[in-house]
Amino acid sequence: MAPELSVSQWFNTPEPLSIAALKGRVIFLHSFQLLCPGCVAHAIPQVQRIERTFSGSDLQIIGLHTVFEHHAAMSPTTLEAFLFEYRLNSPVGVDLADEASHVPVTMRRYGFRGTPSSVLIGRDGTILHEAFGIEDDLTLGARIATALATPVPDAGQAVEVSDCAAGVCALPVSI
Amino acid sequence: MAPELSVSQWFNTPEPLSIAALKGRVIFLHSFQLLCPGCVAHAIPQVQRIERTFSGSDLQIIGLHTVFEHHAAMSPTTLEAFLFEYRLNSPVGVDLADEASHVPVTMRRYGFRGTPSSVLIGRDGTILHEAFGIEDDLTLGARIATALATPVPDAGQAVEVSDCAAGVCALPVSI
Amino acid sequence: MAPELSVSQWFNTPEPLSIAALKGRVIFLHSFQLLCPGCVAHAIPQVQRIERTFSGSDLQIIGLHTVFEHHAAMSPTTLEAFLFEYRLNSPVGVDLADEASHVPVTMRRYGFRGTPSSVLIGRDGTILHEAFGIEDDLTLGARIATALATPVPDAGQAVEVSDCAAGVCALPVSI
Amino acid sequence: MAPELSVSQWFNTPEPLSIAALKGRVIFLHSFQLLCPGCVAHAIPQVQRIERTFSGSDLQIIGLHTVFEHHAAMSPTTLEAFLFEYRLNSPVGVDLADEASHVPVTMRRYGFRGTPSSVLIGRDGTILHEAFGIEDDLTLGARIATALATPVPDAGQAVEVSDCAAGVCALPVSI
Repeated sequence: MAPELSVSQWFNTPEPLSIAALKGRVIFLHSFQLLCPGCVAHAIPQVQRIERTFSGSDLQIIGLHTVFEHHAAMSPTTLEAFLFEYRLNSPVGVDLADEASHVPVTMRRYGFRGTPSSVLIGRDGTILHEAFGIEDDLTLGARIATALATPVPDAGQAVEVSDCAAGVCALPVSI
Repeated sequence: MAPELSVSQWFNTPEPLSIAALKGRVIFLHSFQLLCPGCVAHAIPQVQRIERTFSGSDLQIIGLHTVFEHHAAMSPTTLEAFLFEYRLNSPVGVDLADEASHVPVTMRRYGFRGTPSSVLIGRDGTILHEAFGIEDDLTLGARIATALATPVPDAGQAVEVSDCAAGVCALPVSI
Repeated sequence: MAPELSVSQWFNTPEPLSIAALKGRVIFLHSFQLLCPGCVAHAIPQVQRIERTFSGSDLQIIGLHTVFEHHAAMSPTTLEAFLFEYRLNSPVGVDLADEASHVPVTMRRYGFRGTPSSVLIGRDGTILHEAFGIEDDLTLGARIATALATPVPDAGQAVEVSDCAAGVCALPVSI
Repeated sequence: MAPELSVSQWFNTPEPLSIAALKGRVIFLHSFQLLCPGCVAHAIPQVQRIERTFSGSDLQIIGLHTVFEHHAAMSPTTLEAFLFEYRLNSPVGVDLADEASHVPVTMRRYGFRGTPSSVLIGRDGTILHEAFGIEDDLTLGARIATALATPVPDAGQAVEVSDCAAGVCALPVSI
């Protein structure tokens, strides 16, 4: 099961998102840093292509700004201007800083090895695929389409969703 | 329904292919000319990526060398060397020349406006999508994966296939 | 004649640079912002190629961080991390902020219309070429090589240089 | 000194070209095969950029179709259509076939290891630089501009030119 997000600030969304509340939808979660050259050159443009290609589907794209170096240089203020300049329209959350570590909470929870990383989460909340670096578009397009073609879980699972939202997914405990 | 192929010579396949005999499988049919710059720069590399990405699936890739200009310059001899040098491994047929036209038979049958063109054919033999020029990889990957996710047609349709293979698909008549 | 630089902070150089003190050398002065997508995708990589190609020459490359928008987002702290992550080794100065304008001092002095911009300055201190946006590498390589092939100005001009370095180039006056 | 060309057929020029007759000008001589993927993807587009960048100079660009494999597939008929489709406007010669070898005459004379190869020839007829594969544009632009900045040889050398044109450059002897 995909761990829950811990986010200190959201951009491009009127209200916070959670893995639990999105159960039933496919999620493309991508982790980046605004000063990571590979993210800027390859991952962010790919996310924009995903935005366009799957705009008619119920795919939920979520960006996670997982700062694990140069923390002072990549503040939310800089992130906000970055998102504006790079025309990223899908929701982005600032991964919650961990006082005891350079690595923020959600990044550690997912075990990302660095940026860019991404996770494709199925309608049932399970992790279908993880990538460190960039996958080629053809493979990724096929992977997302295949996930979208999977039927939405039935009501039984939907109950679990509300359970999860009620606190079962209290992931800080497991970390 | 996807029209049948008329091919004067095949490469990269031990025996001729036909749309009829392939019913039940998804087909990516791409039309090119070896001296078409857009084909060489964009379409052929994309076909190679399709070969790699969908190598584990039952997708059938078919190339069609649809020469409609510079006929003497793009002979089967030159095509054979081209396929070798460009490392194209999937089957390629030389579209049958039409004595009454610059446009070869299959190209006219499909109504291709030029090269590169492509057609995605579903398991039931219907045309799912046509493109003149190159689609982006993300969209195409999604499109092929969605077609592959469609169940194979049932036996009733399979009967039609053998009928067609027996000669009903005499396409010059229908053109 | 190329206007003088007004810089509040330097990176990648042990001491401040000035147009005046560099008379006799060819200068490639490039203006950028770290959140300018065209700068990051095209201009900075081109500067790195210039660094490599002309490393054996006496070309002086100077970057100018000309922030004219999102000022809080592109602080020197963020710039320092940016230069580290993007492996830019040549000197970069932070263009002096102008309290009365969004446009910093040197940028206005040169009349740059935006970022990325660049100026090629000849051995005699004159502006040989200005560009808003990116020139293609072939043209730029030819342009720089042609400037480098021009003989160093004679002693008469060298005297002016030391005068200028002594304070005559008090450019805020001339603006 | 750059060896003379042996060409069986010229395209894009009203009359044959020779190294001897071009003494006094800088020559960019590029060797390619129309079915060589690296030539088509990288070398030919670079030659087109050279055509544009140096159109105002006296640089002479010469292409040499040096077929050393798939001879039947790369006939002059196919080359002519190739040049038309790829919009190559500068002169191209078909390197003279050698009955005793797969390698044509001029290619062997220059010692090219394969395609694409190129040679930059100075105003005095000497080889300034040889490359197997593609150089980056910035370096090549600088290299050509530097060669162009070299003064035209004086009359004494011009005499040698006419000598050479009279037959002294009988290169098959030296091969």
